[in-house]
Amino acid sequence: MSAPELVKSNKMFGGWVRKYRHQSTELGCEMVFSVFFPPAAAVQGAKVPVVWYLSGLTCTDDNFIQKAGAQRRAAELGLALIAPDTSPRGLGVEGEDDGWDFGTGAGFYVDATADKWKQYRMYSMGGHGALVLALKNPSAFKSVSAFAPICNPTQVPWGKKAFAGYLGDGWQEEGKAYDATELVRGYSGPQLPVLMDTGLDDEFLKTQLHPWAFEEAAKGKLQLTSRMNEGYDHSYFTIASFVSDHLDFHAQYLLASGPRI
Amino acid sequence: MSAPELVKSNKMFGGWVRKYRHQSTELGCEMVFSVFFPPAAAVQGAKVPVVWYLSGLTCTDDNFIQKAGAQRRAAELGLALIAPDTSPRGLGVEGEDDGWDFGTGAGFYVDATADKWKQYRMYSMGGHGALVLALKNPSAFKSVSAFAPICNPTQVPWGKKAFAGYLGDGWQEEGKAYDATELVRGYSGPQLPVLMDTGLDDEFLKTQLHPWAFEEAAKGKLQLTSRMNEGYDHSYFTIASFVSDHLDFHAQYLLASGPRI
Repeated sequence: MSAPELVKSNKMFGGWVRKYRHQSTELGCEMVFSVFFPPAAAVQGAKVPVVWYLSGLTCTDDNFIQKAGAQRRAAELGLALIAPDTSPRGLGVEGEDDGWDFGTGAGFYVDATADKWKQYRMYSMGGHGALVLALKNPSAFKSVSAFAPICNPTQVPWGKKAFAGYLGDGWQEEGKAYDATELVRGYSGPQLPVLMDTGLDDEFLKTQLHPWAFEEAAKGKLQLTSRMNEGYDHSYFTIASFVSDHLDFHAQYLLASGPRI
Repeated sequence: MSAPELVKSNKMFGGWVRKYRHQSTELGCEMVFSVFFPPAAAVQGAKVPVVWYLSGLTCTDDNFIQKAGAQRRAAELGLALIAPDTSPRGLGVEGEDDGWDFGTGAGFYVDATADKWKQYRMYSMGGHGALVLALKNPSAFKSVSAFAPICNPTQVPWGKKAFAGYLGDGWQEEGKAYDATELVRGYSGPQLPVLMDTGLDDEFLKTQLHPWAFEEAAKGKLQLTSRMNEGYDHSYFTIASFVSDHLDFHAQYLLASGPRI
C-alpha cells in the first residue's frame, strides 16, 4: 500500500480524530481509515494500546467515528481506536451498487474467489468479522467484542447470498472458513475473552444474527459473555449505549500489556 | 400545528430517542423534531426537565441526535432533550437550495419579512438562536448555552447576506432584534447563567463568530462564562467533547426547579 495521506484532523476529548487515505494494492482502489489518538498518545515517546473497530454492513469508518461516541471513554482509558473502511468502493464492477447487502458496503467477511468479484478481498467487516479475525489469529489479539454480529452466515439469507456471490460454486464448503460458528467448532487456541451485545428488538435477530448458534458452539472454547438487551435494536443508538462497556472490557486486557502504536 | 406523528423510536442508554413529524401551520410545510426521553421519564407520572437544542447552519435535528452523544449524560442526569429541525424544507422557493448559508438549512434567526421568503419564519436556529431566544424570553429559561455561536450576525458576512435576504430593505435596523449582541446591550432582565464554548481553531472564529463582541456587550447583564478551547474547530467533534459540560451546567439550574414534560 502507498503511504497513508492525512485527509483531515479534528480535536476531540483532548485527543485527535484523524482520517487517512491510501492506495490499496490488495484491493486495487483508494481506501480510507480513521484513527482516534487519545491524549495519552501525545506524550513524546508514548505508546498506547489499540482497539480495532470493523464497521458493519452498509457502513464506513465514519459511522463509528461520528455516531458511536467511543472517543470519550477511549480518551479516558488511553486507548487508540482504528476504524478501517470495510469495503472496496468505486471499483466499477457491474451490479456492485444494486443492493445494500452485496457489493459496495458489503464486503461480507470473505476474500472473494469468483472472478467477477476478485477485487473484493475484504476478509473482515463488522462484529462477525472481528470474531473471525480473532479465531484465525488468536495470538494477535488480547480480547474481542462485537455488536449484533451475524454469527453463522452460512446458514442465513444475507450470508448465503453474499458467500454464493463472492465465492461461487462450492461456497458452502469454502464459506465455513469465514463463518465464526463453524470456525469456533474446530478452534483449539487460547480461550480469548469475548463480549457480545445484541438487542432483543433487533429487527434482524431471528432471521440473520443467530447469536445462540455461536454461544452453543463456543462453549468451552472461549470466555464468552453474550448479553441480550431488552428494547435495543440494530441501530447505532445501541452501539453508542454499550460502546463504553466494550472499551472497559478491552482495557482490562490491553492495559496490562498489548500491541502499542 | 397538527398532532405530532411518531416516525421512529430507538432505545438508547436506557431511555428512548423518538422522532416525530407534524404539519407546521407557522411554516406551511411538514417539520420534524426529535426527543430523548431519559430513563427517569418512564416512571408513571414522572416529569423531567427539558433542554432544548437548536441545530445550527446546514444541520437538522439528526446531527445533534446522532453525533453529539448527549444522551449518555442526559440519561444519567434525568434530563429530556428536544431537538427541533431549524429550517423549513421543500417549500419550493426559487433559489432556496442554491447555497448552504441561505435558504434550506439556514433559517438564520429571523422571521422573514421579504415577500419571497415569508414562509421562512424560523426565528431561532443554532447557538446564536439560543442566545436570542433567552434574551427575548428570559422568564422561559433557567439557563442558556451555545457552541460556537455567530454572536453578532448584523456585522459579519453570513448574517449580512441572510438578514438582507430574509428581511429586505431596512434589514440593518430590523436585524438588531435578531442579533444577540445588539439585544444584550438593551437587556435589563434577570442575569441568566450562560455558557459558551468556542474553538480557537474554529475556521469561522475571526470572520463570522465574534464571541468577543457578545462578551463585551454582556458585561453586567448576564452570568456569562465564555470558554475558548485550544485546538478545537467548528465540527461536531467539538460539540461531542463539551456537550456533557453543558448538560451538567443546565442541570444545576433545571434540577432545582424548571419546566417539566
